[in-house]
Amino acid sequence: MLKDWNKPERPSDDEIDTRLKIARENLTRNQIKVKEGKIPVFVIFEGWGAAGKGSLVGRIIKNMDPRFFNVESVKYSTDEEKRRPFLYKYFTRIPEQGEFAFLDGGWMRDIVGGKMSGELSDKEYRKRVDSTKRFERTLADNGYLVMKFFFQIDKHEQKKRLETLLEDDTTNWRVSKHDLKQNKKYDEYLEAFDSFMYDTNLSNAPWYMIDAKERKWAELQILDIINQGIETALLNQGHAVPILQNTFALKKIPKLSEVSLDKKLTDEEYKEELDKLQKKLGRLHNELYQKRIPVIIGYEGWDAAGKGGNIKRIAEALDARGYVVNPIASPEPHEKARHFLWRFWTRLPKSGHVAIFDRTWYGRVMVERLEGFCSENDWQRAYNEINEFEKELHDWGAVVIKFWVQIDKDTQLERFTLRQNTPEKRWKITDEDWRNRDKWDDYETAVDEMLEKTNTSFAPWHILESNDKKYARIKALKIVIKAIEDKLEQVEKN
Amino acid sequence: MLKDWNKPERPSDDEIDTRLKIARENLTRNQIKVKEGKIPVFVIFEGWGAAGKGSLVGRIIKNMDPRFFNVESVKYSTDEEKRRPFLYKYFTRIPEQGEFAFLDGGWMRDIVGGKMSGELSDKEYRKRVDSTKRFERTLADNGYLVMKFFFQIDKHEQKKRLETLLEDDTTNWRVSKHDLKQNKKYDEYLEAFDSFMYDTNLSNAPWYMIDAKERKWAELQILDIINQGIETALLNQGHAVPILQNTFALKKIPKLSEVSLDKKLTDEEYKEELDKLQKKLGRLHNELYQKRIPVIIGYEGWDAAGKGGNIKRIAEALDARGYVVNPIASPEPHEKARHFLWRFWTRLPKSGHVAIFDRTWYGRVMVERLEGFCSENDWQRAYNEINEFEKELHDWGAVVIKFWVQIDKDTQLERFTLRQNTPEKRWKITDEDWRNRDKWDDYETAVDEMLEKTNTSFAPWHILESNDKKYARIKALKIVIKAIEDKLEQVEKN
Repeated sequence: MLKDWNKPERPSDDEIDTRLKIARENLTRNQIKVKEGKIPVFVIFEGWGAAGKGSLVGRIIKNMDPRFFNVESVKYSTDEEKRRPFLYKYFTRIPEQGEFAFLDGGWMRDIVGGKMSGELSDKEYRKRVDSTKRFERTLADNGYLVMKFFFQIDKHEQKKRLETLLEDDTTNWRVSKHDLKQNKKYDEYLEAFDSFMYDTNLSNAPWYMIDAKERKWAELQILDIINQGIETALLNQGHAVPILQNTFALKKIPKLSEVSLDKKLTDEEYKEELDKLQKKLGRLHNELYQKRIPVIIGYEGWDAAGKGGNIKRIAEALDARGYVVNPIASPEPHEKARHFLWRFWTRLPKSGHVAIFDRTWYGRVMVERLEGFCSENDWQRAYNEINEFEKELHDWGAVVIKFWVQIDKDTQLERFTLRQNTPEKRWKITDEDWRNRDKWDDYETAVDEMLEKTNTSFAPWHILESNDKKYARIKALKIVIKAIEDKLEQVEKN
Repeated sequence: MLKDWNKPERPSDDEIDTRLKIARENLTRNQIKVKEGKIPVFVIFEGWGAAGKGSLVGRIIKNMDPRFFNVESVKYSTDEEKRRPFLYKYFTRIPEQGEFAFLDGGWMRDIVGGKMSGELSDKEYRKRVDSTKRFERTLADNGYLVMKFFFQIDKHEQKKRLETLLEDDTTNWRVSKHDLKQNKKYDEYLEAFDSFMYDTNLSNAPWYMIDAKERKWAELQILDIINQGIETALLNQGHAVPILQNTFALKKIPKLSEVSLDKKLTDEEYKEELDKLQKKLGRLHNELYQKRIPVIIGYEGWDAAGKGGNIKRIAEALDARGYVVNPIASPEPHEKARHFLWRFWTRLPKSGHVAIFDRTWYGRVMVERLEGFCSENDWQRAYNEINEFEKELHDWGAVVIKFWVQIDKDTQLERFTLRQNTPEKRWKITDEDWRNRDKWDDYETAVDEMLEKTNTSFAPWHILESNDKKYARIKALKIVIKAIEDKLEQVEKN
């Protein structure tokens, strides 16, 4: 790609000036269309050190209303970011609908940089390329306009620019060791960039190479591409997106109607087991913390199935400083304005910590599906997006556990009635719970489909038979312990 | 305080067990009342290293629903936190209404630690104590239940515990150098803690000393205090809070009706000045970045006064990677559920960066006042809270600039009509704008009062006469440049 690139022919100065004026006006108009059309626009500037990415961002946004965009420079990862999955830094920065986000340097710099420094093994590198492709495709499928620019200058030009920056006391701080190394090993980097771009040149998130030798000419190239991108995106709005086939191995899982719910524990068995298992889990948590292994536990289940009490039995075994319970309600406006997984990405635990989700990202294929909060195309596509999300967590090194807390319809009625009649439990029951109950059959269909399509080996579902809550709690503890032990053993081996 | 503390008499084992059972049940009940009463509860655990704060948090929350609380350990500041004002780490962690936040170690550790290590000068130390007092009082005034516990053990007990932890391979990582130093210099630390607690023992955020030698007994003391605190807070709900007198020197500022709006610039004057001033601001931004000085610019003004265009002229002079424009709309649910300044604390710039606010925290004393979104007591109190907030920013080292963009009523009507009739401007005008226009006189009264009460030397207001937008833009640029130059000069001197 980059190696064989044919530079576009540079127009005359006059022509550049004329076209630049038009292009700038177009962007000023297009930003309003983006706002009105609720399109999120994600623009990533990559390229050689000293190629002028930063100053070009500055020129581009001069034509825009500052309320409509964010510019972020993500050159260095913060401590918080280093303890999260590789994509965290980027997924948390996706723009809202109707807004632009400009990244001055993105994931390509991280990945190619890691490859060149030897921090990433070949295998790790391949994994990250795959992650990138999925990430970009997911955004594009969800209506994001993703535009990736590569600022190209040749070795000689880069050297000249770095030297000029170094000569001046007020600019020499802008030259990093990495920039100098890049220039020295220009050809190797060229090879690495080329290969990365070749692999990640997707039709819905293509690479645009920019001749960056002159500012004005570079600005014109970029503006034209952005304007064209916006106009195309507006035309394509509302197009249905192909639903990708699942690409992960799925394990068999019974339908809810096949689950026998008569499992029980006596009070004595329960107390004894609870005490023993909680102590064990407490010890394991300590080990997880020291080995920096993150754990993510998701709970889904019928209303009044006993999620809260179940979570409590897990949580109370853990060191209070090392876990968080995230109760997930309906999304707030700034959350609704982004990809549905955004609010889960932003809530991921740090390495070594445990995050428990009381309701999860599976809302997309249950309540959002059944209440029509998203289109059929959206929720159909979500199964694969969720599997990919969980794969990302798994590859990061997390233990991922998903519980479906199961009860039958009669038990739910009993518990609803009890809640209604007990003053200190009444806050737990709302009209919505009753409305959901009326849709039991629809939900059951949706849940069965969800369990079937997302029961992967790296993030398996576990059904907790919770007509007897005690049984369900002990089972959950055992599953969590087993999953952690397996992970620790595996880490030990490597 | 701590030095002269009379330990409470320890009850018998049996009595502790009986009372503990009752206290735990009370907390289980009280958490629901907190939820229903929408009280935010902020519990801070301070004390000696190895006094058992972490494990006590764990015991306390065992009695609670995990969806109702957060536990945070803030021992180390992240990179992001280090580049923000000292209170940032804590203000961003205040709980939502109806929820508990437990901090395992809080601002006292930071401040006393800084004093003992010599990082904080005496003057800096005094400043932080004052900040702390204001912070706690602001929370309490806004209905927060703030409870601060100090875990007391004697020198000998601490030594014993540290040695036990060190002996065991699975626990020795929990002992920090700081813990060991603390034990060695126990008496000096005792003096420092005592003095800090004496200074910050406020009636609405008092210190509770806990005899932490035995876990069960410590838990009982804490539970009893928390339960009592909640019950008192519930009784006091809705009590009006005394409005503190302003304690900062205020500068005189004209009433809006006295502002003459006939100032004008020709197109030539404008272009020439704009170009010159923007170049200058661009250079200054570079200096700010290198010297790590943060800048906060707030814009308020009538609808259609020209805020957007004014902001644009400032923003386009800046390096895109070093500033953010924060458009402030009505608060989202999670923002409304916290102190009104929370959503501004979370949006503060990093040191060296510029944050521009398109509408600000002054919404509290304008729209929220006039639309009845808060009580009179709330907005009356807000003037002082805002002055204190801005003082905090100033003391951190920030340049704080506030603009009121002024036009007359006829000019507004002209611009509204133009927007209505111009397709690409129509998005800028809503029914609400027309409704607000009807309340012009009420707003003018509120704005005059606001300007008068918050025109401090450290965060002054500047009125931008914007009947001629060009004039207003040039004036804004000059003010920003002057403020930055003054700050740089001052930094140079020190």
